[in-house]
Amino acid sequence: MSAAWDLGSWSREHLECVEQALSRWVGQGAPAGLGDAMRYAVLDGGKRLRPLLVMAAYEAALSARQSTWGAAERSGADEAALRAACAVELIHAYSLVHDDMPCMDNDVLRRGKPTVHVQFGEAQALLAGDALQAFAFELLTPDDERIPGAVQASLCRQLAHAAGSAGMAGGQAIDLASVGLALTEDQLREMHRLKTGALLEGSVMMGAACACVPPQAKAALQAYGAAVGLAFQVVDDILDVIADSATLGKTAGKDAASDKPTYVSLLGLAAAQAYASELLAAAHAALADSGLPDARALAALADMVVRRSH
Amino acid sequence: MSAAWDLGSWSREHLECVEQALSRWVGQGAPAGLGDAMRYAVLDGGKRLRPLLVMAAYEAALSARQSTWGAAERSGADEAALRAACAVELIHAYSLVHDDMPCMDNDVLRRGKPTVHVQFGEAQALLAGDALQAFAFELLTPDDERIPGAVQASLCRQLAHAAGSAGMAGGQAIDLASVGLALTEDQLREMHRLKTGALLEGSVMMGAACACVPPQAKAALQAYGAAVGLAFQVVDDILDVIADSATLGKTAGKDAASDKPTYVSLLGLAAAQAYASELLAAAHAALADSGLPDARALAALADMVVRRSH
Repeated sequence: MSAAWDLGSWSREHLECVEQALSRWVGQGAPAGLGDAMRYAVLDGGKRLRPLLVMAAYEAALSARQSTWGAAERSGADEAALRAACAVELIHAYSLVHDDMPCMDNDVLRRGKPTVHVQFGEAQALLAGDALQAFAFELLTPDDERIPGAVQASLCRQLAHAAGSAGMAGGQAIDLASVGLALTEDQLREMHRLKTGALLEGSVMMGAACACVPPQAKAALQAYGAAVGLAFQVVDDILDVIADSATLGKTAGKDAASDKPTYVSLLGLAAAQAYASELLAAAHAALADSGLPDARALAALADMVVRRSH
Repeated sequence: MSAAWDLGSWSREHLECVEQALSRWVGQGAPAGLGDAMRYAVLDGGKRLRPLLVMAAYEAALSARQSTWGAAERSGADEAALRAACAVELIHAYSLVHDDMPCMDNDVLRRGKPTVHVQFGEAQALLAGDALQAFAFELLTPDDERIPGAVQASLCRQLAHAAGSAGMAGGQAIDLASVGLALTEDQLREMHRLKTGALLEGSVMMGAACACVPPQAKAALQAYGAAVGLAFQVVDDILDVIADSATLGKTAGKDAASDKPTYVSLLGLAAAQAYASELLAAAHAALADSGLPDARALAALADMVVRRSH
């Protein structure tokens, strides 16, 4: 643990691998128009929080390994983590493409660029989202004997659960049904736990699974993932109120304009900010409980999630 | 091989299992509105050709097994085949939901019922399709030790490839870009090989994978799947011209009305019918080459695909 460790350098190093892998893989073999839309949706944009959570959890779990791996096993685990990092980003990217469509949020600006359906048309956007979801599962299941079948299957299981009706898609359905309704804090938390939290928590658990995390650390990482996932959404709601569109790279003030329940509308701004701080403390406490020797990247990512400005 | 074997009884028996499983699984744990839309999209309709191909290929591959399985291994393989049968149907169902949406084919009638977006709204239809795709991969990766991780991973790999940009979604993108264009027969075949053929062929190969099909039979089954997949589309194009909407359970004459290239528009009706017969003969020849002791169900399904009236 050198004193020189900082999140910026760590992130740059890992994101370089992730960006290169995404650029190499996404849209490969796709008919031209579809491949273009897929690449536009994924490349050159986004904070890549989910891939970073995968890599951070993978490294933290690696730091706790007692038994030693041979070179092939280790390179297989590294490859699995990189693929998992890309797969969660593909799921995130596809959900944004579909979310932005006219029948959903009808948004025209995303990451400072026209949304996919504005750029490529609605039909192509629909297909690009569908193809990105399928590709996430294809990435997790390479014909590569270095990655055990059980690990591949476990990654697919976790991603499918996080993305599906008991995860992200389910949360979006609740969101859709909640516009204009007065939700309780419990209902709002449940919606966000599914809509945003499931994939963030899934990212942590998938990273940990690539290094076969020890059982005692698994529950702690789950608690960390749940706290960070919820904190992310609370901060999103806060930023929607206090930031402007240029900083966010998307349309600000959308929630209030579309009469969506948020933590700010429910708790007020000051209480929402206090809640975000509480969740950050819970994330750090979970890492302390985990017994993982080196969870610096996970700790720093939690800080970044709560303290970000966009 | 009793003389009493017939496709009708065989299909009824297997479809009962598939329908029960789909009814038990689909929409479970989903928020109410989303679960309803998912179930509406999947249950009570459709020929279930893809699940039948999975089950038929599984049984054919089983008939060639030299080594014996213990009870747990056999029940795990049966369970894997059932899950694969349901998963391919979920992918098919989600593709129909998205295909019918206003930004794609804008169809209001499917299997004799209002399409999902007509019944539940566009946003819910979009989410239901997305959730069905995720659920297909969740079904393939149960936390069930009877099904080896390598089998689960292989099923996911094949399904993701068949559904994604180098399969179904890619074919739909080519279809989208082809409206009003004069395609060559090669281009039309490539479009259909991806759009419809990939998932039909994938169904055959996934069923075979559940019983660890012998290598020499694998190539033959691939040829069978490719021939049946293409024949299915040729017959679809023929039926679009010669059948009426009531028989089809969907709007007839759509292809000509929307100026889409088809085998009938390219070859003429008689030559398209002759081509379907050729492909059927190729499917039977592949089964004869496979060396599989009992491929009766696969043979009968090929006949059904070409001789169906809807």
